[in-house]
Amino acid sequence: MRHEERLEQYRKSVDEALELYLPSDEFLPQKRLVEAMRYSLFAGGKRIRPVFLLEFCRVCGGDPEIAMPFACAVEMIHTYSLIHDDLPCMDDDTLRRGRNCCHVEYGEATALLAGDALQTAAFEIMLDAVLTGGGDMANAARATGIIAMNAGVYGMAGGQQLDIDGSVEFQNPFETVMATHALKTGALIAAAAEVGCILADASEDRRASAVSFAKALGMAFQIRDDILDFEGDAALLGKEVGSDARGGKLTFATVKPIQECKSLVISATQDAIGYLAAFDAEGGEEGRETDFLVWLANDMMNRRS
Amino acid sequence: MRHEERLEQYRKSVDEALELYLPSDEFLPQKRLVEAMRYSLFAGGKRIRPVFLLEFCRVCGGDPEIAMPFACAVEMIHTYSLIHDDLPCMDDDTLRRGRNCCHVEYGEATALLAGDALQTAAFEIMLDAVLTGGGDMANAARATGIIAMNAGVYGMAGGQQLDIDGSVEFQNPFETVMATHALKTGALIAAAAEVGCILADASEDRRASAVSFAKALGMAFQIRDDILDFEGDAALLGKEVGSDARGGKLTFATVKPIQECKSLVISATQDAIGYLAAFDAEGGEEGRETDFLVWLANDMMNRRS
Repeated sequence: MRHEERLEQYRKSVDEALELYLPSDEFLPQKRLVEAMRYSLFAGGKRIRPVFLLEFCRVCGGDPEIAMPFACAVEMIHTYSLIHDDLPCMDDDTLRRGRNCCHVEYGEATALLAGDALQTAAFEIMLDAVLTGGGDMANAARATGIIAMNAGVYGMAGGQQLDIDGSVEFQNPFETVMATHALKTGALIAAAAEVGCILADASEDRRASAVSFAKALGMAFQIRDDILDFEGDAALLGKEVGSDARGGKLTFATVKPIQECKSLVISATQDAIGYLAAFDAEGGEEGRETDFLVWLANDMMNRRS
Repeated sequence: MRHEERLEQYRKSVDEALELYLPSDEFLPQKRLVEAMRYSLFAGGKRIRPVFLLEFCRVCGGDPEIAMPFACAVEMIHTYSLIHDDLPCMDDDTLRRGRNCCHVEYGEATALLAGDALQTAAFEIMLDAVLTGGGDMANAARATGIIAMNAGVYGMAGGQQLDIDGSVEFQNPFETVMATHALKTGALIAAAAEVGCILADASEDRRASAVSFAKALGMAFQIRDDILDFEGDAALLGKEVGSDARGGKLTFATVKPIQECKSLVISATQDAIGYLAAFDAEGGEEGRETDFLVWLANDMMNRRS
């Protein structure tokens, strides 16, 4: 299968599964909440986290059907964080992926609840998978726990706090940005990769390599994001550019020269690809097992939106 | 054991367990987030939900140590909902239990994250209990799933949405208030009671009775809350009174005469107590097994804060 096709197939299957997990229900009295959740969930996200989760599961010989609820749950957690991030008390954004932010469309109160309820839905779906998903119960519970750990105070939410604080806990602004994004962006991407391995009952060594791959790639992804905010094309990005610099925000692109940022993206991506050696097997018809992940990493490195 | 003593012991053990689950950490870069979470978690809550969970577990012959993580998790979810509820975009409150609300003390952004991270922490603790809590793994996963279901779009968060919408989906304002609070307050209390039974491997019949008890009592509790907002003592309550009526908010006390509300509290409490028959056993030294729950129900009915 060509890489673009595989990516497209993953995205399509994730969207279909999300549709089943969070159906629209016009007879539900609190339907406005479901609408707001769906508005942000189906806003054209790249589904990077689910794709990593499903692909690591596949590469390790696991069953994608068992992994799908977890892939959807990770995407719900990511979406909840975006909704809350965009709120006036946080980044105060109005556009996301070329559309109004959730709170612009539904009001702040409903957007707040939509984020809250997406987080809860993520755990509900995973718990259901633990009980009835057909895989190993302990592995499924372990996977859910890892996602929780990486989403909370020691992971994604903790990173958000560092972002708010512009923390003075670190040696210099670059260290602050590194620590912030390791948690804010890196933790959940790493969890997705690790959970893919766990659900396939992969070895400790492969789990650790998947985490290292995802952390390095998450860093590359974030630096690329910051570069795009600095010099990207607003039309392609579907949001304003230059807001980080104007807001005096600490980002990779505001604490390092842009050329150095670009070098960092390349070296972090190469580091990430290096960790994939743990997954190599003798190539069959489709080439190396990790070809798709390598292609995806390079694609992310060069992305313009 | 006297009832007051048992209640005090429950509260103390819950507080001690919460302290272990969310320790203060002055070396953590995102320590401000932990502080904000702890600020609201240790703000003098009555721990009603954990007490129900632990007591139903005890009455059904379960092990309180296995139930404790779930009791703490339910309290964390309750606390997260209070923090978000108090935010300017929701109820815009400034005082809770006689102290500044979380966002007044820490700012809106940190309060938002503190709520988010408390929800995540709740699931993290439960997943850890599923894997290492020493009880039946499937029952623990089932318990976690029930808490998720009752906290999300079809439970507590859904009730919040109805509260925001002042929904026109119902026949009359009283129906709206009933439906709103069945979800907003009732769902999580019912989940706590049910989970206590599940962790003790109680019969379906007892599970259903615990849910009915908790739903009726949750309704009584909410009506009592609304009465207190209408005519309570601000000093005892630790917050302003009369704000519901001034804000034109739909509450039991604004849609029904206050005397009728008081009758409803009494009848709902009696209904609740009636459901406890399913738990009666031949009395030992401590009297009927459900004596404490009966006492607690009556105590809640008469509370002034």
